[in-house]
Amino acid sequence: MLSLDEIAQRTQGRVIGDELTCISGIGSLANAQRGDLTYLSNQRYRTQLQATEASAVLLSEQNVANCPIPAIVVPNPQLAFAQIAIEFDKRTRVAAGIDATARIDSSARLGDDLRIGPNVNIGPHCELSDGVELCANVCIGAHSSIGRNTSIRENVVVYHDVEIGAHCTIHANTTIGADGFGIAANDKGQLQEIPQVGSVRIGDDVLVGAGVTIDRGTIDDTVVHDNVKLDDQVHIAHNCVVGAHSIMCGRSALAGSVTLGEYCVLGGGVGVAGEGPVSIVGGVEIGAMTFVSRDITEPGRYSGSTLHTDNRTWRRNVLRLNELDSIAKRLRRIEKILENNAPE
Amino acid sequence: MLSLDEIAQRTQGRVIGDELTCISGIGSLANAQRGDLTYLSNQRYRTQLQATEASAVLLSEQNVANCPIPAIVVPNPQLAFAQIAIEFDKRTRVAAGIDATARIDSSARLGDDLRIGPNVNIGPHCELSDGVELCANVCIGAHSSIGRNTSIRENVVVYHDVEIGAHCTIHANTTIGADGFGIAANDKGQLQEIPQVGSVRIGDDVLVGAGVTIDRGTIDDTVVHDNVKLDDQVHIAHNCVVGAHSIMCGRSALAGSVTLGEYCVLGGGVGVAGEGPVSIVGGVEIGAMTFVSRDITEPGRYSGSTLHTDNRTWRRNVLRLNELDSIAKRLRRIEKILENNAPE
Amino acid sequence: MLSLDEIAQRTQGRVIGDELTCISGIGSLANAQRGDLTYLSNQRYRTQLQATEASAVLLSEQNVANCPIPAIVVPNPQLAFAQIAIEFDKRTRVAAGIDATARIDSSARLGDDLRIGPNVNIGPHCELSDGVELCANVCIGAHSSIGRNTSIRENVVVYHDVEIGAHCTIHANTTIGADGFGIAANDKGQLQEIPQVGSVRIGDDVLVGAGVTIDRGTIDDTVVHDNVKLDDQVHIAHNCVVGAHSIMCGRSALAGSVTLGEYCVLGGGVGVAGEGPVSIVGGVEIGAMTFVSRDITEPGRYSGSTLHTDNRTWRRNVLRLNELDSIAKRLRRIEKILENNAPE
Repeated sequence: MLSLDEIAQRTQGRVIGDELTCISGIGSLANAQRGDLTYLSNQRYRTQLQATEASAVLLSEQNVANCPIPAIVVPNPQLAFAQIAIEFDKRTRVAAGIDATARIDSSARLGDDLRIGPNVNIGPHCELSDGVELCANVCIGAHSSIGRNTSIRENVVVYHDVEIGAHCTIHANTTIGADGFGIAANDKGQLQEIPQVGSVRIGDDVLVGAGVTIDRGTIDDTVVHDNVKLDDQVHIAHNCVVGAHSIMCGRSALAGSVTLGEYCVLGGGVGVAGEGPVSIVGGVEIGAMTFVSRDITEPGRYSGSTLHTDNRTWRRNVLRLNELDSIAKRLRRIEKILENNAPE
Repeated sequence: MLSLDEIAQRTQGRVIGDELTCISGIGSLANAQRGDLTYLSNQRYRTQLQATEASAVLLSEQNVANCPIPAIVVPNPQLAFAQIAIEFDKRTRVAAGIDATARIDSSARLGDDLRIGPNVNIGPHCELSDGVELCANVCIGAHSSIGRNTSIRENVVVYHDVEIGAHCTIHANTTIGADGFGIAANDKGQLQEIPQVGSVRIGDDVLVGAGVTIDRGTIDDTVVHDNVKLDDQVHIAHNCVVGAHSIMCGRSALAGSVTLGEYCVLGGGVGVAGEGPVSIVGGVEIGAMTFVSRDITEPGRYSGSTLHTDNRTWRRNVLRLNELDSIAKRLRRIEKILENNAPE
Repeated sequence: MLSLDEIAQRTQGRVIGDELTCISGIGSLANAQRGDLTYLSNQRYRTQLQATEASAVLLSEQNVANCPIPAIVVPNPQLAFAQIAIEFDKRTRVAAGIDATARIDSSARLGDDLRIGPNVNIGPHCELSDGVELCANVCIGAHSSIGRNTSIRENVVVYHDVEIGAHCTIHANTTIGADGFGIAANDKGQLQEIPQVGSVRIGDDVLVGAGVTIDRGTIDDTVVHDNVKLDDQVHIAHNCVVGAHSIMCGRSALAGSVTLGEYCVLGGGVGVAGEGPVSIVGGVEIGAMTFVSRDITEPGRYSGSTLHTDNRTWRRNVLRLNELDSIAKRLRRIEKILENNAPE
C-alpha cells in the first residue's frame, strides 16, 4: 500500500487530488481496477484516460487538463511508473543462503548474502560478490566472476574466465562464453575450429534476455559495456564490443568483430555482418530487420528492410529487382535522347 | 501391429485390397520397408508410389487408380497418417510419480497421475493438474499453473504467475515468462528496466517448440490462445496476443504489443514490429522472412522478402535501390514530355 | 611453454630469428604482451605488425620482409595459430568418472574414460563411447548414442533415438531431436501435430553452437553429415540434410526438408524455405541475411539481402518498390515510342 503522497515523493512528482488516496496495485489504463495506479505516457492512449477505473494516474503536465481521477504530475510518466511498479512485483527470489544441492568448488571466493538455488554448479576459482542470486541449475565455469547483486536466472550457462559486473540481470537459458565461431579450412577443405582463448567481459547494470548467446573472443575478449540492455535471443559473436547504454532488441545479432558505439539502438532482427570487422559509431539507431554490412560513421537513423504487401503486388514487383540496373541505364539513355532532341 | 481394417476404422477410411494386411511400422514413400504404412499427400511425390516397398498406403480418392499396393482411402491422408503414426512413436515418458530429486514446494497443489522427472524445481503455490509431465530440470516459478496432461520437456523454465492450459507440449530449453523488454531512459540517457508485473497466459492444446521465448506482459498479460502452434526459436514479446489456431514457423517473432488474429500463419523468420502496437486480423498468411511494420486489416496472403540471385546480379542491382525514387520521378517527367509532344 | 623450434615443428613452419625464444601465451597483434605468440593472417592488420609487443609471429612468406620480431613462416598462419592456441586453452574439463548425482539408466552401454558431470540424466538403452564428456545437466533420451570423445556442454538436451558421431562439440542450451514442426489442420481448421517418428543423425567432427535447435524427422531422419560446423542459434528443421564440410553461421536456418550440399557456407541470418523441399547443390556460398526460396543448382556465390541507408533515403525509396513493375512497363512503352519515332 502506498499513498499518493508517498508516490509523489518517490517520483518527485506533484499530486493533483486527494493525497491520501491509497494505491494497492497497478494496472494499464484499459484494465486497471479500483485501487490501482496507472500511467499515461503515449498520446495514443489519451482517450482511455476518461474511462479508466484506476484510482490515480501518473502523467505529464500536458495531460493534466480534464483528468477525471487523482493524478501525479511528473516529467517522465513511464520512468516514474517503473519506479513504483517495482513495489508490486510479485517475483519471489531464491531463498537466502546456499541450497544443499548446489555444488560449489572449495576454491571459490564467496561474498555475503548470497542466494544460491538448487543444483547450481560453480567451478574452481570463481568469485561471487555480495548479494549474488543464482537460480536453479545455473552453471558457472572455472575462474569466472559475478559482481554485486547480480541475478542469474534458471538454466543459464556461463563458461570459464567470464567476468560479469554488478547489478546485472541475466534471464533463463542464456549462454555466455561459448566458443566463438572461428573456423579454418585446411588444404583439403576440411574444417577445423580455431581455439577461442579470449573470454567475455560484461559491465555493470547490464540486462541480458532469455535465450541469448554471447560468445568468447578468439584471443582478446568479447566486451559488453555498462548499462547495455539485450533482449531475448540476441546473438553477440566473438570479439564484438558493445558500447555503454546501447540497446539490442529481440533477435538482433552481431557477427564476429563488430564494434557498436555507445547509445545505439538496434531494432528487432537486425543483423550486422561484413566481410571484415564492421564498426558503428555511437548514437546510431537501426530499424528492425535491417542488414548492416558496412561501417556507419555518422550518428543518426538507418534502415534497409523491405515492407510487406499483398502477395500479388509483391510477386509482380520482386522479380523486377533484378532489372533495376538495366532500368536505370535505359532511363538514362532515354534522357540523353530527349536532351539531344530538345528544342533550343 | 495394426490391420488395415483397424487403421480404416480409426481414420474413417475405406480399404482397397486385403483388409487383413498387418502393419508393423511406418515409413516414407521412398524409404518404407515391407510391413510399413506410408501415405501420399502431395502430388509432387505421386511417382514414388509405383516403386514404394510399403505394404499399404493412405491416400485420397484421386490417387486410387493404378495404386500398386493395398490402400486406405481417406479425405486427408496427412491427418490420417498422423493419427496412426502416433501408435509407432517410440518416445519414452518420464516415469510415473515424483522423482526423489524433484523439489516441490509444500504449498503446491498436485493432481493425480503426475510424471515429475529428476531435479525438477517447483516454486510455492503452483498448481499441477492431473497427468502433467515435467521432464528433468524443468523449473516452474511461484503461483504458476499447468493444465491437464500438459507435457513440458527438459530444461524448460517457466517464471512465476504463468498459466499454461491443458494438453500442451512445450519443448526443451524454452523460456516462458521472462521479463518483457521494457526500457526507459532517464534524462542522463541511462537505461532502466521497467518492471514487468504482468504475466503469460497460454491456452489449451498449444505447441511450443524448442528454444522459444515468450515474455511476460508489462502490466496486462501476454496471451497465447488455444490451439496455437509455435515452432522452434519463436519469440513473442511482452503484451502480445496470439489468436487461436494460429501458426508461427521457426524463428518468427512478434515485437511488443503485437496482436495476431485467429487462423494466421507466419512463415519462418517473419518479424512483426512497428513504432506502436501492430495489429494483424485473422486469416492472414505471411511469407517467410517478411517484415511487417504496419497493421494488416484484410485477410489474405502477404509477403515482402527479397529473393536470392547470383552475387554479380545482386551487386549490380541492390545499389540501384537507392535511386528508385529518382527513377520514378524521372520516368514521370519523360512521360509528361512525350504527352506534350504527342501528335494531336 | 613452447620454443619457436617446437612451434615450427608442430606447424611445419620455418623459424626466422632466435629458435630458442620461449612462448608462454598467445595474443592478438594489437594486445599481445612479451612472451606471447601472435599471427598475421589478414593484410588488413599488417600495419599492426610493426608495433606489436608479441615475442614471435606466425605469418606467410609474403609478409616476412621487414618483420620486426622473430617469425615462423607457414602457408596458413590462421590454421597454424589454431594448432598452437589449443595449448593455451584454459578450459577445465569435467572430472574423470561419473558424478554421484548423475542418473544413468542401468541399460546404458558405457565406454571407458567417461567424464559425466553433475545431474546428467541418461535414459534407457543409450550408448556412450570412450572418452565422452557430458557437462552438468545434460539430458540424453532413450536409445541415443554418443560417439568417441564427443563433448556436450551444460544444459544440452538430446531427445530419444538420436545418433551423434565422434569428436563432436555441442555447446550449451542446444536442443537436438525435438519434434519437427509438422502441423495438419482438420476440416474445422483445428490444428494437430503430426507425430515425428524419425530422428536425428549427426556425423563425426561436427560442431554445434549454443542455443541451436535441430529437429527430428517426420518419418526419415534429419541428417547432419561429417565435419559440418554450426554457429549459435542455428535452426535445422525436420527432414533436412546438411552435406559434409558445410558451415552455417549464426542464426541461419533451414525450413523443413531442405537439402544442403557439401562445402556450402550460409552467412548469418540466412533463411532457406520454399513451398516444397528446397535443394542447394554443393559449393554454394550465400550472403548474410539472404532468403533462399528456390533450388540452387549451380555452385557459386548468391545474395539477396538489401542494404542499410539513412532513414530519409530509405523511406523515399522503399515505397517505390511497389511501383517497380509499373516502372518497368512504362519504360518499355517509352522505348517503343522512341523506336517508332527514330529517324530512319
